[in-house]
This record gives sequence, C-alpha cells and structure tokens, in this order.
Amino acid sequence: MKPLVSIIMGSTSDFPVMEAAAKFLDELEIPFEINALSAHRTPAEVEQFAKNAEARGLKVIIAAAGMAAHLPGVIASMTTLPVIGVPIKASLEGLDALLAIVQMPPGIPVATVGINASLNAGILSAQMIALHDEKVAVALKKYKEGLKKKIVAANEELAKVQFKHKIG
Amino acid sequence: MKPLVSIIMGSTSDFPVMEAAAKFLDELEIPFEINALSAHRTPAEVEQFAKNAEARGLKVIIAAAGMAAHLPGVIASMTTLPVIGVPIKASLEGLDALLAIVQMPPGIPVATVGINASLNAGILSAQMIALHDEKVAVALKKYKEGLKKKIVAANEELAKVQFKHKIG
Amino acid sequence: MKPLVSIIMGSTSDFPVMEAAAKFLDELEIPFEINALSAHRTPAEVEQFAKNAEARGLKVIIAAAGMAAHLPGVIASMTTLPVIGVPIKASLEGLDALLAIVQMPPGIPVATVGINASLNAGILSAQMIALHDEKVAVALKKYKEGLKKKIVAANEELAKVQFKHKIG
Amino acid sequence: MKPLVSIIMGSTSDFPVMEAAAKFLDELEIPFEINALSAHRTPAEVEQFAKNAEARGLKVIIAAAGMAAHLPGVIASMTTLPVIGVPIKASLEGLDALLAIVQMPPGIPVATVGINASLNAGILSAQMIALHDEKVAVALKKYKEGLKKKIVAANEELAKVQFKHKIG
Amino acid sequence: MKPLVSIIMGSTSDFPVMEAAAKFLDELEIPFEINALSAHRTPAEVEQFAKNAEARGLKVIIAAAGMAAHLPGVIASMTTLPVIGVPIKASLEGLDALLAIVQMPPGIPVATVGINASLNAGILSAQMIALHDEKVAVALKKYKEGLKKKIVAANEELAKVQFKHKIG
Amino acid sequence: MKPLVSIIMGSTSDFPVMEAAAKFLDELEIPFEINALSAHRTPAEVEQFAKNAEARGLKVIIAAAGMAAHLPGVIASMTTLPVIGVPIKASLEGLDALLAIVQMPPGIPVATVGINASLNAGILSAQMIALHDEKVAVALKKYKEGLKKKIVAANEELAKVQFKHKIG
Amino acid sequence: MKPLVSIIMGSTSDFPVMEAAAKFLDELEIPFEINALSAHRTPAEVEQFAKNAEARGLKVIIAAAGMAAHLPGVIASMTTLPVIGVPIKASLEGLDALLAIVQMPPGIPVATVGINASLNAGILSAQMIALHDEKVAVALKKYKEGLKKKIVAANEELAKVQFKHKIG
Amino acid sequence: MKPLVSIIMGSTSDFPVMEAAAKFLDELEIPFEINALSAHRTPAEVEQFAKNAEARGLKVIIAAAGMAAHLPGVIASMTTLPVIGVPIKASLEGLDALLAIVQMPPGIPVATVGINASLNAGILSAQMIALHDEKVAVALKKYKEGLKKKIVAANEELAKVQFKHKIG
Repeated sequence: MKPLVSIIMGSTSDFPVMEAAAKFLDELEIPFEINALSAHRTPAEVEQFAKNAEARGLKVIIAAAGMAAHLPGVIASMTTLPVIGVPIKASLEGLDALLAIVQMPPGIPVATVGINASLNAGILSAQMIALHDEKVAVALKKYKEGLKKKIVAANEELAKVQFKHKIG
Repeated sequence: MKPLVSIIMGSTSDFPVMEAAAKFLDELEIPFEINALSAHRTPAEVEQFAKNAEARGLKVIIAAAGMAAHLPGVIASMTTLPVIGVPIKASLEGLDALLAIVQMPPGIPVATVGINASLNAGILSAQMIALHDEKVAVALKKYKEGLKKKIVAANEELAKVQFKHKIG
Repeated sequence: MKPLVSIIMGSTSDFPVMEAAAKFLDELEIPFEINALSAHRTPAEVEQFAKNAEARGLKVIIAAAGMAAHLPGVIASMTTLPVIGVPIKASLEGLDALLAIVQMPPGIPVATVGINASLNAGILSAQMIALHDEKVAVALKKYKEGLKKKIVAANEELAKVQFKHKIG
Repeated sequence: MKPLVSIIMGSTSDFPVMEAAAKFLDELEIPFEINALSAHRTPAEVEQFAKNAEARGLKVIIAAAGMAAHLPGVIASMTTLPVIGVPIKASLEGLDALLAIVQMPPGIPVATVGINASLNAGILSAQMIALHDEKVAVALKKYKEGLKKKIVAANEELAKVQFKHKIG
Repeated sequence: MKPLVSIIMGSTSDFPVMEAAAKFLDELEIPFEINALSAHRTPAEVEQFAKNAEARGLKVIIAAAGMAAHLPGVIASMTTLPVIGVPIKASLEGLDALLAIVQMPPGIPVATVGINASLNAGILSAQMIALHDEKVAVALKKYKEGLKKKIVAANEELAKVQFKHKIG
Repeated sequence: MKPLVSIIMGSTSDFPVMEAAAKFLDELEIPFEINALSAHRTPAEVEQFAKNAEARGLKVIIAAAGMAAHLPGVIASMTTLPVIGVPIKASLEGLDALLAIVQMPPGIPVATVGINASLNAGILSAQMIALHDEKVAVALKKYKEGLKKKIVAANEELAKVQFKHKIG
Repeated sequence: MKPLVSIIMGSTSDFPVMEAAAKFLDELEIPFEINALSAHRTPAEVEQFAKNAEARGLKVIIAAAGMAAHLPGVIASMTTLPVIGVPIKASLEGLDALLAIVQMPPGIPVATVGINASLNAGILSAQMIALHDEKVAVALKKYKEGLKKKIVAANEELAKVQFKHKIG
Repeated sequence: MKPLVSIIMGSTSDFPVMEAAAKFLDELEIPFEINALSAHRTPAEVEQFAKNAEARGLKVIIAAAGMAAHLPGVIASMTTLPVIGVPIKASLEGLDALLAIVQMPPGIPVATVGINASLNAGILSAQMIALHDEKVAVALKKYKEGLKKKIVAANEELAKVQFKHKIG
C-alpha cells in the first residue's frame, strides 16, 4: 500500500512534537510515511522528494521546521500537492518559524498550522484526503464528535469543585 | 438561588488559573456557576448557553481561553450581557490570546483583562453587579481598602532590611 | 438629568477617535458627559473626579489614553465603578497603550477594549447600564440585530461582482 | 453548476484584498461563490453556512477576517471541510489576525496563509481540488511554470541597468 | 541623616531584584530609604510621598514596577525630582512594564533603565547625586575603573581554555 | 558662559525631532550646545567628547540615535555624567532603537526616554540641573503647572461639542 | 572580466532598494552582476546558480528577499561562498524577512544585514574582497574616512541653528 | 603562527555559547584567538584591539554580545575587517541583542548570525578565510557534505518508529 501523507522533519528531535500527527493518521487508518529531510543540509534530496511526491501517489505533505523554517516553502515550490507547514518552537517562542512558513510570497502557498500544532496538521491532511475518501470523511466526523467528550468530562470535574456560593 | 456570574473555561486545565475569580466571587457572596465550554469543540452548547444566559438571570459572563482565543468573542456575539475575557497564557507568552480576545470588531465588545488575570475578572464582574447591589458595592470598597494592607505589610518587611546607609 | 457614563480623554486630539462612543450613547439616549483629564498633567483633578464619580451618579467610566496609558488604571485605583479603557494608537501601532492599560496588577481591573475601539467602549458601557435599565437593554438588542444588516448589504454588493465561474 | 470553493469575507471592504483569490479560481475555471458572513454579527448564518457546506457540494472554504479574526476558526469548528484562513491587515500590521487564525486549539485546524495573501488562498484551494481533478492539476502545473516568466522578465529589466563595473 | 535617594517598589517580592540598587548606594555611602508603595493600591500614599519628596531632602526617586507599570509615571507627575523607572519582568518578558514606563507623554519624563536593571538604576541615581557631590563623583569613577577588572578576570579564564589551534 | 547640557545627534535629519529639547532648554534659560557625532562614523570624536565632557563643565548629555542605536551607550561608557538616550524612530516603529538604548548591561546606565521623546529628554535634563539650581527648579514647577492649561483648554473645546444626551 | 560579487533579487521591484549595493560596488570598481532569481518560483535556476557560483569566480553573493525570505538561505545551502542576506521590508515592518534570513539552522550561516540595508551589504561584500585585494582595502579605508564628512557637514548645519541660550 | 580569526566576548559566561565557534575553527585548523572585551567597560581596549586587528594579521572578527549589544558594531566602526555579530540570548528571548547588532546604520555593516548561533559564526568566518585558502575551502565542502549524515541518521531512527499504517 502506498502512503497518502508524508510527514517530513529535520531531525529526530522533532519527532516528539510530530508524533501526534502520526498517531492521528494511524488512528484514521490513513497510510503515511515519516522521513527526515533538511532544506539546508540535503537540498538535493528535498528536490528529489518533492518532484516525485505526486507520482508516488502522495496526496498531502506535512513539513515541520523551526527557526528560519524553509522546508515547507521549499517543498511547496517544487510540487503542486498541498503542503502543510508546522512551525516548531526552537527560539523566539516559535514566532520566527511561524513567520518563515506562513508569509510565503504570492504563487507558492503553505497551509500553516499553529506553533508545534502537529495534531492539527494531521487532521488537516485527513480533511483533504476526506474530500474523496468517504471512510476518512466519516472517521473525521466521528473524531469531531469525540472532541465534545472532553468538554463533558471537564464539566463533570468542574461540577465537583466546591464553593459556598457556587450554584450547580 | 440563581447564579449572577458564569465562569466559562475550555478545560479543567484552566481551573488553576480561573480559581481566583471563583474564590473572589465566593468571598463577596455573589452566586456564580462554573462550566466548561469550547467555541470550537462544542459550538452548539456555546450558542445555547449564550442565548439563554440573560433569561436564566445571569448578569455577567467571564470567559477564559488561550491561543486563538475565540470563546469570549463568540459568546459576546450571541448575548448583550457584558462578557469579560481572560486571555490564558498557553503559547507566545499569552500575546496570541490577548490579541484574539481584545481586538474585537466594531459592534461586539469583550471587556478584556490581563493575561491569566482571573482575579481581576472576578473583581470586574463584581463591580458590574455592584452597580445595583449595595451589599456588593460595600464589600468591594472594603476589599479595595484591604489592598493597602499588603503594602503596609511589605513596608514592615522592608523596614527590617539592614544596610549601613539605609535610613529608616 | 445626571450623566450615567463619563467619557474621559487626555486632549481634544483624541476626540475624533472617541466620538463613536459619544454617538452610540446619544443614539441609545443614555445621558453622558465628556471631559479632558490627564493622569500625568492633572493628577489632582483625576483624583477628585474618580473619588466623586459614584456619588455624582455615574455608573461607568470610559477612559482613553495613548502611549504609557495610565489614565484608566489610575482612575480605576480610586473608584469601584467599572472603568473601560480605550488604548489610543499614538506609537508602536498602539501596542504600548494596550499593554499599559490591560496588564493591570491583581486587585484593580480595567475592562479593556481594542486599540482605538471607542464604539465598543460605548457599547460595553451600555451593556452594563442595561443590566438594570430595560429600555437600554431593548435598544441594545435592536442595535445587535442591526449589525446583520451590514452583512446583508455586503452580500448584495458581492452578488453584483461578475466572474465567469462565480456561481450565484 | 455547483460551486466547489466558497470565499467568505466580513464586508465588501475586504473584497479588494480577496479579489485575487476569485480571479485565480476564475482563471482555473473552478466554480466558486463569494459571500459576506461575520462570526460576530451573523453567527446563526455562519452556522447554517458551515453545517450545509459539505452537503451543498463545496470542497474548500476560504475565510478572510481581520483583527480578532474568528471567522475561519468558527467555520472550521462546524464542518470537516478544509478551511483556509486569510488574515486581513486591519491593525497591528495584521499580526493580531494572523495569530487569531493560525493558533487554533488541538482538534480544529485552519490552513492559514500569509497576511492579505488571498492569491495564495486561491491557489491552495485549487491544490486541494486538484487532488481529484486532473484538469485543475494540469492548470496548476501550467500556472507554476508561468511563475518563472516573471523572473525571466525581471532579468531582462535588470540586464538593462547600466553600471561601469556591472558584468553582463 | 536624611536619605538622598528613595527606592520604591510595589511589594517585597520585588526586593530580590531591587537589592542591587540598595547595595550599590550603600557601597557608595549614599544615604537612601526603601519603601513599598503602589500606584493602584495606595494612591493617596503615593501622592503624599511624591509631593513631600523634595521638601524631605530627597534628590532622586527610583521606582520599580511590573506589568502595566504606572508607579514611576504617577510619581513623576507629582514631583519635579528626577524619577528613575525600573521595569520588573513579571509577564511578557517584561516588555509590558518597559513600554508602560518609558513611553510617557510629553511633559512628564521617566528616566528608564533596562528590564530588572536595578543596579543601573542605583548607578544612575548616584550619577545625578555626583553632579554636586565630589565624594560620590570620585567613587563613581573608581567604580567605573573597577568594571574593567571583570574583563581582565574573564581574559585570564579564557586564556586557560585549550584548543589545538588557539593562539595565545 | 559654558553649556550645562549637550545635545548630540547623528545627523541634521534628527534635528526636527530633537528641536523640542533645545526649545525647552532655551525656554528655561539653561545654556546648552548642539553637536553632531556618530558612534560608528566618528568614534574618535565621540571618545574625545565624552572624556572631556565633565571637565568642560557639562552636567548632562542628551544623545539621540536610531536603529542599532549605540551612541548613548558608547558615550555613557566613557563618562560618569548622566546620559539621557532618545530612541529615534527610523525603522521597526523605533523598537530597535529603544531596545538598543535601554537594555544596557550592568554598570553603564542610560536614562532612556520614549521613542522620539526629545521634549521629555530636555525636561529630564532640567530636572537634574534643578537639583542644585533654584532658578531652574522654580521654572520647572511653573512649567509643570502650565501642563494643566492644555487640559483646561481641551475641556473648553469638549464643552462645545453638542450631543442631545450629553450633559454639561 | 569576471564578476566577483553577485547581487540576486526576486523581482525588479527590489531594485530601488538594492541599487545602493550596486552603486557602492561600482564606486569601488569591484566587478559585479545583478540577476533576478526566486527560491520559490525558479528553484532549479537557483540551484544552478548556487552550484556554479564558485567555479564562475564569484567570491560573495548578496541575496535580497522579503516576507518568508528563503532565497539567501537556500543559496547558502548549495555553496560554501559567503552569502549576505538583505531582508526586504514588504510586510510586518520587515521583521518576518529578518527572522527568516538570520535565524538559519546550525551549519548554514547567512551573513545578515539590517532591513533594506543594501548599502551595508555592498560594503560587507567589499570587506570580504578586501581581505586579498589591496586596492579594495585602500578604497574601503578611504570610504570609511569619508563617513566622517557627513558628521562635519551636519555640525556645520547645526552650528547655524539659533537659540538664545545655545552656546557655540 | 598568527591567528586569522578573533573571537571576542564580554565575559566568561558567554563561553559556553561561543565554544562551538572555537571548536569549529579548531576542527578546520584555522588559527584563532579568544579574548574578553566590553564595548562599555573597556572602550579603550576595544579601540586598541579594533585598530590593530588588521596589522596583526587577523582576517575576521567574531564578536558576541547580549542585551543592548554594542560590541560588534563598535568594533566594526574601527576596522574594515569583516565583523561577524552573534546576538546572545540574555533577555527578551535575544530579540534586543539581535536588533542592536543587525540594524546598523548605513556605512558600518555587521554580518549578523542567529541568536546564540556561534557555530554559524565560526562557519561564516571560515567561508571568508576560504576565499583565498584552498585547504579551508576543501574542509568546508567536506563539512557541508557531513551535514547530510545527520539526516541519514535521523532517517534511520525514524525508520524504526512503528505505526500500523506507517509505510516504509
């Protein structure tokens, strides 16, 4: 089976952040791959990856990078597949990575999610897959329903908090 | 007895920050409620809460949220009760939550307090209640008087600090 | 008739920004006053104003200030009436005024609205008045309904925009 | 013919910025619609729009908003279609809108593009459509090729610039 | 003996930061005092302090405050003695306090030093005293000479660091 | 007559900003000088100026600079006279100059005023002179009194503004 | 004659900013070239340029880019020649471009100059050339001497400014 | 043997950050020196160092500084050797040091690397040396090749991560 989503990161130190994206794709049974690539250290490999991505059957690329984060933009410049950028917090609270990913020039968009927001990157990739995959679409709706449960659980916890003038 | 103030937060993890608001309302004997709601995970429940708030006798709503903090603004869009927004520090030192709460478009204000400033949210809600509740008004004045005591205590501590050329 | 809301600003140069608050209060027939006061240039007058505000029958104070904007916080320290702070954009895109108003220490809240958001300050003051004034409450609801009209008008404008592949 | 992409904005004043997205979709012959909706002024209409979007055959939603920009996130909370957020520069150089759109909480992603980057929003929506539309995929590749032409033209212009020690 | 410099802070929790100013004044044998005052919690006491400062023989006031730091500016508005402001880092990396202190409106300056820079506040106050106190002037020059010693010591440490291609 | 205050700037383009300091000193009849010096373009002249400043009878130095504003700090490193730094807004809204001036390392303070706040620099220098010059002290108090007049005038202007529900 | 310095920019709209670098190199008689290249629109051409740069005899590359400015870093990843990055102010006051250029990951430096600081980029490139080109070294020293002249001229201008209490 | 590169820092506390530059130069067998100097504490020594640098055979100067970081710019003002500035993170996440180093006025460039990026400073200095030192040029190319190895190793680590739907 071919991967539909490719998760790219610069080093294994990014994996603890990016693991949430992998887990989500696994949960939704969307085949994916994980690789390390660097816009600056392995530009040739990035080019090869980006140019072959569509032919290999990939539908979405998730690229994570910190600091002067060029990886998502560089990949986006070499493919017409949608590229999701995940700014990694490594310095300046992640603001440098956010701006270096989201502020792409006209012509080459990167679909940027929040700082360290790898779960959201995974969900967003699934939303794109779901446009033509009914099973994933159903799973996403179910996942979305599940988000409410955390609120229900939170309410149950908060109901236990005791104050003299707290009602309910 | 019906609650006059409603404290809303997205998860139990916000409770340690928001507890100060609850304690203050309890101290001033203002009936209140605490609930978990999420603008993004339970939009229908948020709508139901906001639209019924006034009819249920609520006077003020305190809503806390972090990151792209939409909860206070979304509630404010569905009621004419005053909504107090508390930006929770979860990323970017809380600056994202502050801007996402305070910079509301013309027509839908949110009364914003400082980052993680839940005590001030509680006090502000009491100030609004006090406009027509003499007991609360008196309690607020007493509380304000009490703020001086911390300064008196601080001065006593500082008076003990010994330097050769320190006078007094 | 006594004013219920007091609009305070540091100079007549703030009036073009603050005019929207005055117009809104006028529209809702809420009696108000407008005065110039400066936390730094007329501290004695600020103190006199703040300490007499409640006795004069005022319910809400709207205070506008730019740069190291101390006026709303200084007034709030001398009254238990709710104080709404309007950060005026005079330098640093208004970020200095926003932080100097919203980041009040524990004990003395200022209900902060967005940068230059005087209309929202006016609405917020009316929302507080409306807690015990049915006429204002009804007028606010009507105003809120009216906000939709701008969207309806915008849709009509956008409907006229012609593109070959635009539907509707 | 049903629209595949829906462009949403808060007022006609956003249209000059968002026009580039519309023009791009028109150029690629992707059917689209343009509507005005406001998370804060017409929350009921936003809900109706978001909940019916998938059933109406929409594939991607582009939502533009400024300041405390809630529209993209609120729509994203009510649909599993991918939502592209365009931060509009209205204050603080657009930084408030960027953070209010991109920093979404876990579970509800918004695919954020740069400040005022409506063309990139249009391209990104086309990239998602192209995953299962060969015609659009081909058009995108052609568009991408065309981006080089601007550089060729720029080089021709720069070649004309005369300096004594400029080579070539 | 009367104090020449007054160090003001909002609470004993600021003392660990402000201690460096006290130690420096002590080292230079400049009589000083330390007190707790709050622009917001004890405005009357602040006014009394500021208005009597000159008559009491004070020459310089050092005022420390965090967040929406009003204390230095409020004191400065009530005296013509030079007021040195020390922004305390309590939130937003201290940027809020810095802006709330330094961006004073025309007419009321505060001599601002760096975030948490209490030693520099002490030195600056001594520089003002030294304008008419030869003993302090001499001590300051000696202190300044001493700053070089740290560099000499650092060089000695660095000289011990061993690298194969390090010269010297 | 010898100057007591020296105003230093990097170029004549800073004069329109710095003129307010000169005018204020002139108004208070404090002898001053104005010179152009650059920490980066004329380091030798800066050194000569700073090292001779005290011997020439100067009491205070006002140094203005923009961008990576080194001039105030460099002068401060070579004299024990108090140095007032004026951050000039030339890029990044003046934030770069502010930080480059105020965030001095321990040992070498610069008394920093707000961005482009040359009037406040002039006043602050006069406040230091006034510590031992009764005439200047009196003039400062008179100037401070005069600040109220602007507020009085503003109130008169605002009194003329007509609204139906405006009181007073 | 072969160019020693290559100036790269993304479009002719950057030329007005970058012209100062070209003029400086021309003045110092350093042969240079100017070309348009885009990291995102012409990645293949950028690669070809970067990989052949050293063989073509180039010594230094000056690359200008705005927003999510990848060009300098991408070139730096493909050559061991020193690359000077010039952040172009196109949005967010140029802060996005500055961070996207300067915050390069370990291993691939970009020698970054200030926002829009193309003259400094030209000078810096000349300083590198001068390490082994006596003629350029002499010209640089002469240029540096010339910087003082502006200060001399500024002083002459300032000497003409008339104030009653201005000395000299 | 004479040093070609000089590493300057303000105190031994900067050495843990700057060690990476030293190690890199050592690895490439480029003779270097390390010294402590302070723009503010030892201005005379800085001047002597900067003015003699070229005559002593130095080719590049690496200067590290934090906060209002003047050292790189002050050295650059006194030599025509290229000066590499390393902003040290000591406050405000290092943003103050970055701006105080990179935003130099026209005429005096500092080649700025990222916050705490001492390795990149070392590499950049080697790139300048390599312009006329074939051995260093070869070593740099080899180092650059080596950067890929980390990516290879990272890929091997990531290949071991097990997910049910992970391919490869």
